Amino acid sequence: MYTENKYAISTLGPSTVKSPLGLSSVKGDKVFNFIEEEERVLENISLDEVNRQITGKEAPPSYEKAGPREKIYFRPTYTTAAIVTCGGLCPGINNVIRSIVLRLHYLYGVKKVLGVPYGFEGLNPAHGHELIDLTTDKVKDIQEFGGTILGSSRGAQDVSVMVDTIEQNGIDILFCIGGDGTLKGADAIGEEIERRDLRVCVIGVPKTIDNDINLIDKSFGFETAFDIASPIIRNAHNESLGVYNGISIVKLMGRDSGFIAASAALAMQVVNFVLIPEMNFKLEGENGFLSSLKKRLDSRHHAVVVVAEGAGQNLFTNAKKIKDASGNVQHQDIGLYLKQKIDEYFKSIDYKFTIKYIDPSYIIRSAPANPIDSIFCSRLANYAVHGAMAGKTRFVVGMVNNHFVYIPICEVVRERKKVDLEGELWFAVIESTGQPTFME
Amino acid sequence: MYTENKYAISTLGPSTVKSPLGLSSVKGDKVFNFIEEEERVLENISLDEVNRQITGKEAPPSYEKAGPREKIYFRPTYTTAAIVTCGGLCPGINNVIRSIVLRLHYLYGVKKVLGVPYGFEGLNPAHGHELIDLTTDKVKDIQEFGGTILGSSRGAQDVSVMVDTIEQNGIDILFCIGGDGTLKGADAIGEEIERRDLRVCVIGVPKTIDNDINLIDKSFGFETAFDIASPIIRNAHNESLGVYNGISIVKLMGRDSGFIAASAALAMQVVNFVLIPEMNFKLEGENGFLSSLKKRLDSRHHAVVVVAEGAGQNLFTNAKKIKDASGNVQHQDIGLYLKQKIDEYFKSIDYKFTIKYIDPSYIIRSAPANPIDSIFCSRLANYAVHGAMAGKTRFVVGMVNNHFVYIPICEVVRERKKVDLEGELWFAVIESTGQPTFME
Amino acid sequence: MYTENKYAISTLGPSTVKSPLGLSSVKGDKVFNFIEEEERVLENISLDEVNRQITGKEAPPSYEKAGPREKIYFRPTYTTAAIVTCGGLCPGINNVIRSIVLRLHYLYGVKKVLGVPYGFEGLNPAHGHELIDLTTDKVKDIQEFGGTILGSSRGAQDVSVMVDTIEQNGIDILFCIGGDGTLKGADAIGEEIERRDLRVCVIGVPKTIDNDINLIDKSFGFETAFDIASPIIRNAHNESLGVYNGISIVKLMGRDSGFIAASAALAMQVVNFVLIPEMNFKLEGENGFLSSLKKRLDSRHHAVVVVAEGAGQNLFTNAKKIKDASGNVQHQDIGLYLKQKIDEYFKSIDYKFTIKYIDPSYIIRSAPANPIDSIFCSRLANYAVHGAMAGKTRFVVGMVNNHFVYIPICEVVRERKKVDLEGELWFAVIESTGQPTFME
Amino acid sequence: MYTENKYAISTLGPSTVKSPLGLSSVKGDKVFNFIEEEERVLENISLDEVNRQITGKEAPPSYEKAGPREKIYFRPTYTTAAIVTCGGLCPGINNVIRSIVLRLHYLYGVKKVLGVPYGFEGLNPAHGHELIDLTTDKVKDIQEFGGTILGSSRGAQDVSVMVDTIEQNGIDILFCIGGDGTLKGADAIGEEIERRDLRVCVIGVPKTIDNDINLIDKSFGFETAFDIASPIIRNAHNESLGVYNGISIVKLMGRDSGFIAASAALAMQVVNFVLIPEMNFKLEGENGFLSSLKKRLDSRHHAVVVVAEGAGQNLFTNAKKIKDASGNVQHQDIGLYLKQKIDEYFKSIDYKFTIKYIDPSYIIRSAPANPIDSIFCSRLANYAVHGAMAGKTRFVVGMVNNHFVYIPICEVVRERKKVDLEGELWFAVIESTGQPTFME
Repeated sequence: MYTENKYAISTLGPSTVKSPLGLSSVKGDKVFNFIEEEERVLENISLDEVNRQITGKEAPPSYEKAGPREKIYFRPTYTTAAIVTCGGLCPGINNVIRSIVLRLHYLYGVKKVLGVPYGFEGLNPAHGHELIDLTTDKVKDIQEFGGTILGSSRGAQDVSVMVDTIEQNGIDILFCIGGDGTLKGADAIGEEIERRDLRVCVIGVPKTIDNDINLIDKSFGFETAFDIASPIIRNAHNESLGVYNGISIVKLMGRDSGFIAASAALAMQVVNFVLIPEMNFKLEGENGFLSSLKKRLDSRHHAVVVVAEGAGQNLFTNAKKIKDASGNVQHQDIGLYLKQKIDEYFKSIDYKFTIKYIDPSYIIRSAPANPIDSIFCSRLANYAVHGAMAGKTRFVVGMVNNHFVYIPICEVVRERKKVDLEGELWFAVIESTGQPTFME
Repeated sequence: MYTENKYAISTLGPSTVKSPLGLSSVKGDKVFNFIEEEERVLENISLDEVNRQITGKEAPPSYEKAGPREKIYFRPTYTTAAIVTCGGLCPGINNVIRSIVLRLHYLYGVKKVLGVPYGFEGLNPAHGHELIDLTTDKVKDIQEFGGTILGSSRGAQDVSVMVDTIEQNGIDILFCIGGDGTLKGADAIGEEIERRDLRVCVIGVPKTIDNDINLIDKSFGFETAFDIASPIIRNAHNESLGVYNGISIVKLMGRDSGFIAASAALAMQVVNFVLIPEMNFKLEGENGFLSSLKKRLDSRHHAVVVVAEGAGQNLFTNAKKIKDASGNVQHQDIGLYLKQKIDEYFKSIDYKFTIKYIDPSYIIRSAPANPIDSIFCSRLANYAVHGAMAGKTRFVVGMVNNHFVYIPICEVVRERKKVDLEGELWFAVIESTGQPTFME
Repeated sequence: MYTENKYAISTLGPSTVKSPLGLSSVKGDKVFNFIEEEERVLENISLDEVNRQITGKEAPPSYEKAGPREKIYFRPTYTTAAIVTCGGLCPGINNVIRSIVLRLHYLYGVKKVLGVPYGFEGLNPAHGHELIDLTTDKVKDIQEFGGTILGSSRGAQDVSVMVDTIEQNGIDILFCIGGDGTLKGADAIGEEIERRDLRVCVIGVPKTIDNDINLIDKSFGFETAFDIASPIIRNAHNESLGVYNGISIVKLMGRDSGFIAASAALAMQVVNFVLIPEMNFKLEGENGFLSSLKKRLDSRHHAVVVVAEGAGQNLFTNAKKIKDASGNVQHQDIGLYLKQKIDEYFKSIDYKFTIKYIDPSYIIRSAPANPIDSIFCSRLANYAVHGAMAGKTRFVVGMVNNHFVYIPICEVVRERKKVDLEGELWFAVIESTGQPTFME
Repeated sequence: MYTENKYAISTLGPSTVKSPLGLSSVKGDKVFNFIEEEERVLENISLDEVNRQITGKEAPPSYEKAGPREKIYFRPTYTTAAIVTCGGLCPGINNVIRSIVLRLHYLYGVKKVLGVPYGFEGLNPAHGHELIDLTTDKVKDIQEFGGTILGSSRGAQDVSVMVDTIEQNGIDILFCIGGDGTLKGADAIGEEIERRDLRVCVIGVPKTIDNDINLIDKSFGFETAFDIASPIIRNAHNESLGVYNGISIVKLMGRDSGFIAASAALAMQVVNFVLIPEMNFKLEGENGFLSSLKKRLDSRHHAVVVVAEGAGQNLFTNAKKIKDASGNVQHQDIGLYLKQKIDEYFKSIDYKFTIKYIDPSYIIRSAPANPIDSIFCSRLANYAVHGAMAGKTRFVVGMVNNHFVYIPICEVVRERKKVDLEGELWFAVIESTGQPTFME
């Protein structure tokens, strides 16, 4: 009916190989069915909106449904896959690596899977790292450990050099597990591959502990993150209760998006103030943060503040922008700044108080995945493998409206997902904390 | 455009009271918006299906979107709410109770919330229990503890007597936290209330650790359940490894649906056989379970079997059906039966083996909610409160396609949600365990 | 001064090899000192008692102090060690295996360590198991997992055959990790070795989750056991609170000694009755358990009962004694018996109640060691290695009065350690539960 | 035999009141016995040493055995007790408070227990805090939460003012839960009470997460501390593995003593360097820390460093000494200093590396006690109560050689317990890490 889909996935070419998976294409025989190429999942699920689009002859935006195809592109026994992990740690990376290797091996019969050490560096011979043979035995128990067995690095490498390495090693499929920068890098690799007319597909598995990948419901590791953050916040509450006018500041991850801070505050309802990058706030004045904090202490004699690392950047307008190796703008440290400002403020008015400053980021991101994320990682990896074997390229696998789909990389890196200040999550935070609006 | 909605919610009457919530009805002002009455969420989100329906002039099934309304039905200061918890324990009940009380009190200004002790028994004076005053102080820390502070009971009480109690205590809103039987009971109470033309609304918060409530994505406590089951399964694996030809059988909850068994097996990928109520299987013969188990032991010398409590009921065809106090058919104990059959089988062929039988059900269901369920419970309770204050009745609050909605109770109790043997979850289990089909 | 020590350790002969450990024999140089052979630790540390003994010219009983000796017996590079694990699982076995291997390898330079598979069975060729090469790489991460990587079995094997295997494999040192039966077996092996005049030493590392090894302060895995039992007991409490007159029975390990039951009840002070093997009790009558339980329910409407598996054997006087493969008398199942008796009692008096029966034994014993036990296992293993390299034999390593010592195996297997009903631990349990004496 | 005991405890006067505890003074009747006043426990349990002392007519140092006395000093129904908690948080404070209240109430029948808010400040009316009535209902569940329900503060208050408050409130027994400074304060209060000839006893319950209290085996909260530190260290290891030449620095508590650092490194054997206050070390030069760290990275490409907060103070000789409110010398921050020095060093030699700095102190000290500490706290509190009711004063309760004893406060505050660099604990750390000596 509609000629063009908004979120179309590239493929290397027509799939002609019969899938080795013994699935069905008949409904009702109690065997999982192959996914038809044209199956799609709606982006927007508001009745009115979809109604309006369809009757207006517009194509409602939709995603390609993820899953195993009856015909695949690669002949498994001749296929070499590789996995690379980039950027900061996040719970569940090893689960994804493990599941990709096991599914390629046991499900499709791909015998050769390579591990690229230390991120994109491992694809640049100048760094002198060696590719690793990822056998099923090597990955068997790695999900018990946090981190990534492959090592990681930040920052870009020369795309042409990386594609040379891919060619020289006969890699047919490259799985890139990483965040915004990594996915852009993966897409650039995919573009260079197309330019050279190679038969290599590039798949992104979005990794961001901040949960800030555009379009998708959630990213792996995110739920583990606030699972681990929760008792830390409870303990911060204990610290604040343990002294007269005790203030605990917990800095959590969230460079551009406050999902972890907001979720952790909801999970552990002892938080009085949540500060996230999406909101601007002022410190001084009647409606400022400092005076709200004082009101809280006056009445209850303790307070817990959760601040996302990227919050309050409006307070640093004069600072020069510095970028890290991944190309992300280095943020000023809001946590320590806040601590200093609170300190100055209460000293200036001769007010008795004690501050504890807690920064658990490295404790959280290097933890192993919890059972819920373990399942999620395993399913993500399965779907990544199905898409790859079908010859799809330059896509990420993700969950939208509770269904797994494939999305072009270029769509998810267009912008970051943000906490909607008018949305239900933030409203729940406001309800739970009772915090006022700190007028800019 | 369409005259009738499939999932229409009853209301007590027009809402005329201005909501005390300081929300917005303007998009873009960074304040959460009231939900319009007509906002609806699609049930089916396959593009093709919705397309077909709309162009065929059919109304695509959709649910009423959950959230706060600008006009509400009850005047908060004159409103009395009550909460009752029924059936077996499930992680998160106290979180739901706590959030209902806190939101009614702090958000809407409802000052009187009653707790009904020991389930529907507490609404029948014959049992001699007294209603409890649920103050904010009393519920402050209850989420730290598993179970339910109100106590629970199974089984029905006389509907007319319960409605008498509701009337006599001036209850305007009754929140019923419970499973299939409880929700049916709640609907019967709602019907009697309508018959008497009372202005009382009845809301169901679906509680089932088995995750078997129809139509909704997941029920609260379910993720905590397999979170806790996961290390138990790992330990069962250790037991099986610790002896020659060691077999560990872990019986998990799941009377009619195998979601916990399937999910726990996915989370902890050491399971070799998953048996759930949705599948029939045979024990004997070439393709039977016993001979598959023997093959596994022959090659690896250990095996882990996860069995849902309601699995294999086809093996007990001669047994008489007994019902429990909640009206559920009492299942034969498949776990012990399996243990006995394995024992007989291997002894009959003089095969060396050791079985360990593990039944952790009571350990799991009485645990406190994990952080992810804590958030989920809190949000469920918020939405239940918003719907109740708007005078809606005989509905449950739940999540569909990752969005919170209101659904008529009668729709969710129509049948139980099952693991789809052709679905992706079961396929992932088959992939992970490598288990064959045990032909009936 | 005294001619003979009560707890003298056998040695293979004089130690003449210089230890490769770069330790000191000078106090004050900030380097750990070698232990002198004559250093001994008092058994009884009551001032009066020791006073009486010494002035009465009696030798106060004392143990050989554990630690590295300056002269050792074995030349490390020519030494082969072996490790065997027997009996039921217990948290920490893999920690002990790992530390023995690492210390032998890195500290002393022993290059060959063998693992005996499936307990003493692995020393009997009739069972067809093969010895395993325990490299440092193989044991690197095993402490993360519960169970034993070597596998275990119960029961004795022919001592002569086992010593043949030891001789044929050139084993110089045999570490036996196991309980009462295993230690007796180890001593018998040591005796046969002496009879054959071999230069092989046999060391016992006492393993009993029940903490019932005579003379020593605590056995490894015991603290992990009640660490894991504690939340289970809390959840059992939630179950009992969740219904009217709810009774939760938690059966814990403890065949002959109630240390786990008593300690878990102290750690989680929600337990109302603790029943252990050391006490006789009666069920019926005025001062019987059943009527005490009823009094508790009458006043509080819930109760938690913790029962050690070997408790109440006086109630089964007519039953025939059956022994398990380890030669332990098979106990009647007190947990299920209690459940049945309570059920009968309350039904006979038409009393409303609900019982939940919880048996978490397999969940507990197969868990990985907690950090405290991890340290303890590591230190035990170190000391076992030091003693072994010095040519000592037929001893166990243990902690007495908070100091590590070597004790002849024959002394620790003479009887089992029991909870002293007049001691402080049991008094603390009585204080905490408030339980009466159930007069026999 | 000996005229004088080294560790004699003061008492208010002869005990004449019959204890309400139904204990026994007959051995063998299966009832716990009252402790005789003269029962004592040896300090040194080396056979040779004790032998030498006794035969040399010297009194071997010994401690008064803790436990309930048959005659007590206070009449329970007329007795008022108070509890104060001072200094930093430590796991288990609430457990101690709870057990003191419950044992006083249920065991002895003391009806009035007061809580002093915010440490010694609460005994100085100038601060305006009000004493809290500690009912059994108020303390029932507090052990589930970390911190102290009473609040705490640092630093001294005027002793005379505090004793005035004690007199004015009719307090007979004051339990002081705190560290070195608090115990000195408690002793000063006891001295002033003696000077005024009041009948008030003062008991110290030693609280120091650093485990640095002189003479006693361990302090409460210490085992929980490294229990919680352990996964953090494992995660730090993951961080170091996740990048090329990754270095993780974990700063742990330990102002003057390195017990937590040493124990955590033993519990989680992935640590390569442990730096504690007891050792001096140098950074630069051939045998310095920096060059050892480089050697480690050269060979393994990752390293984990655990540093106690008070380590390396020799590196700050020029800094001025600053004292905190408790009178402890403020230490320079060795963690950040180390990070900076490592950074400078590797940059100066153009060496690729990444550092992660982790300071989990506030997360650890505010956690709830684990089950092992829960038991320990409960028993400590019991013994404190028994000693107090017997009219003993100016003593602490502690464990020595695995037995509970009473020790004069003045003895335990004489000096701090240190890690013995020649002792077994440190030797085990050296063995586990393989770290060289960093020559001063």
